[in-house]
Amino acid sequence: MAFPISMQDVRAAQLRIAPFMPPSPLRSYPELDAEVGGGISVYVKHENFNPTGAFKVRNGLSFMAALTAEQRERGVVAATRGNHGLGMAYAGRAFGVKTTICVPKGNNPDKNAGMIALGATLIEEGADFDEALVVAARLVSEHGAVFGHSTDDPQVLAGAATISAEILDEAPHLDAMVIGVGGGSQAVGAIVAARALKPSLQIYGVQSQGASAAHDSWHSGERMTTAQATTFADGLATRATYDATFPVLREGLAGFIVVPDAAIAEACRVLMRYTHSMVEGAAAVGLAGVMALRDKLAGKRVAIILSGANIDGDTLRRVVNREL
Amino acid sequence: MAFPISMQDVRAAQLRIAPFMPPSPLRSYPELDAEVGGGISVYVKHENFNPTGAFKVRNGLSFMAALTAEQRERGVVAATRGNHGLGMAYAGRAFGVKTTICVPKGNNPDKNAGMIALGATLIEEGADFDEALVVAARLVSEHGAVFGHSTDDPQVLAGAATISAEILDEAPHLDAMVIGVGGGSQAVGAIVAARALKPSLQIYGVQSQGASAAHDSWHSGERMTTAQATTFADGLATRATYDATFPVLREGLAGFIVVPDAAIAEACRVLMRYTHSMVEGAAAVGLAGVMALRDKLAGKRVAIILSGANIDGDTLRRVVNREL
Repeated sequence: MAFPISMQDVRAAQLRIAPFMPPSPLRSYPELDAEVGGGISVYVKHENFNPTGAFKVRNGLSFMAALTAEQRERGVVAATRGNHGLGMAYAGRAFGVKTTICVPKGNNPDKNAGMIALGATLIEEGADFDEALVVAARLVSEHGAVFGHSTDDPQVLAGAATISAEILDEAPHLDAMVIGVGGGSQAVGAIVAARALKPSLQIYGVQSQGASAAHDSWHSGERMTTAQATTFADGLATRATYDATFPVLREGLAGFIVVPDAAIAEACRVLMRYTHSMVEGAAAVGLAGVMALRDKLAGKRVAIILSGANIDGDTLRRVVNREL
Repeated sequence: MAFPISMQDVRAAQLRIAPFMPPSPLRSYPELDAEVGGGISVYVKHENFNPTGAFKVRNGLSFMAALTAEQRERGVVAATRGNHGLGMAYAGRAFGVKTTICVPKGNNPDKNAGMIALGATLIEEGADFDEALVVAARLVSEHGAVFGHSTDDPQVLAGAATISAEILDEAPHLDAMVIGVGGGSQAVGAIVAARALKPSLQIYGVQSQGASAAHDSWHSGERMTTAQATTFADGLATRATYDATFPVLREGLAGFIVVPDAAIAEACRVLMRYTHSMVEGAAAVGLAGVMALRDKLAGKRVAIILSGANIDGDTLRRVVNREL
């Protein structure tokens, strides 16, 4: 199959991003390893320390930096539930590009305020993410703007792949990675980077039981859409698979599992306890996956990506109080 | 008066620390500025992203890296409630120096486990920090080890001063800094760095109402010791002033205020909401100080230091639930 991006694209994205953010820390926590058990060494990639509090800032910067002067003039439109929009708004501000972000009605007000604070124009329309995508596509055709899709875009995927390039450059002795799948950009990035830098690396995908479209499709071989995507880990709440990522996931993942939201919430608590850093639900699903795959990963060196810190106050309260 | 360290010492400490950690991010949050009000621009120094989760890792690295080979052979003994010991243990591991950490009985078990996980030998003896200090001094004289005091040591102070050197190198247009005072190393570091780099910078000290020895001494001009130090912000829970820091604070601070623990807890919540990062109590006292000094700081560019992320699970739960 043809991959949507090459390692050369990833290295180019690293150069585009470098002026704006240093590599994020990759750390080990002996106490976390003891808690995980099975002789597993966990390598924690702290994307939750990034500007905008999420890995998506890489995607936004990779995308904006690759635009031509003419495209920057036209402006960018994107659809999001939060982190992709924050990344695009951040990058839009850095490059002086007018950025319009479409969110569904009733979207998290903290995330909306964050995008507005970064100078984006916010359009709140549509019932869910997929409807906001339609609104974005309409604005693109009406105003001649550039569309910044959160997954189906080579520069966005190359941005996400810089995470795994950094990980493998720093820890080439890794055996495996366990990665949460929403749209799939992080996992596709890992597959592309590993193919070039460490072909033996085993990459596992993880979704929430309540939002398992990609997982179900991967196992059945038929791309399917679910009626709902119910998980407190909103970065994973996708109902569909994506053209640019699903075929790569299908070919490149060593396995794909689901975990219940309760396991994700417990992983949040474990990560907050031992890494003393803020994690949103989607950032903890990798650890929940490592726990679920403990037997298979016994004795191995395994990386996880703390993909974001943007948990809202009410969800944090429920996690800390064990209400999730 | 003679300062305990010079800017040359700070620059040397930056060079010693550089191989082990990059500068921490200095960020702005428009929503945080809106919440603070008064047209104040807040610059947030993210020491809570450091290895060991606290600024004290700088002190430990600065100290260990400056030891002679003969001193490294003898090993290091330190007393701590937590973050200083974590910093010393981290640096001891990095330099292969046997590190013994004295903590009072009943010290936070999470912090103890963290130091042991970093390879330190833990001695749990004495009723409080000051008694643990006596234990440490005894071990030093019995075993010929090197004493690593958490405040009264020039390399430790130079390590802490690298925070403000980074801040002023990156943001020379700052008008003020508002800094929590426990032992006073952060504030003394700011005073030393500002004297060299930005003499007009106004530096304010802040303590908790329940642990106000340095504040009370600063205002009266007489160094005093309090019977207790009661605050959930354990990094600020000092009962005394220190030889190496108090005279500098007395001369160099533009003002010194106290805030109630409730204001510190509220500042924790505000910081978690807008910076999406983990903060321990001592890390939030700078923002609580900015709020209290709002009129005086109106329209100014003000830096605060999020000094650490090492809040334990129970305290986090109480903060989030507004029980503090």
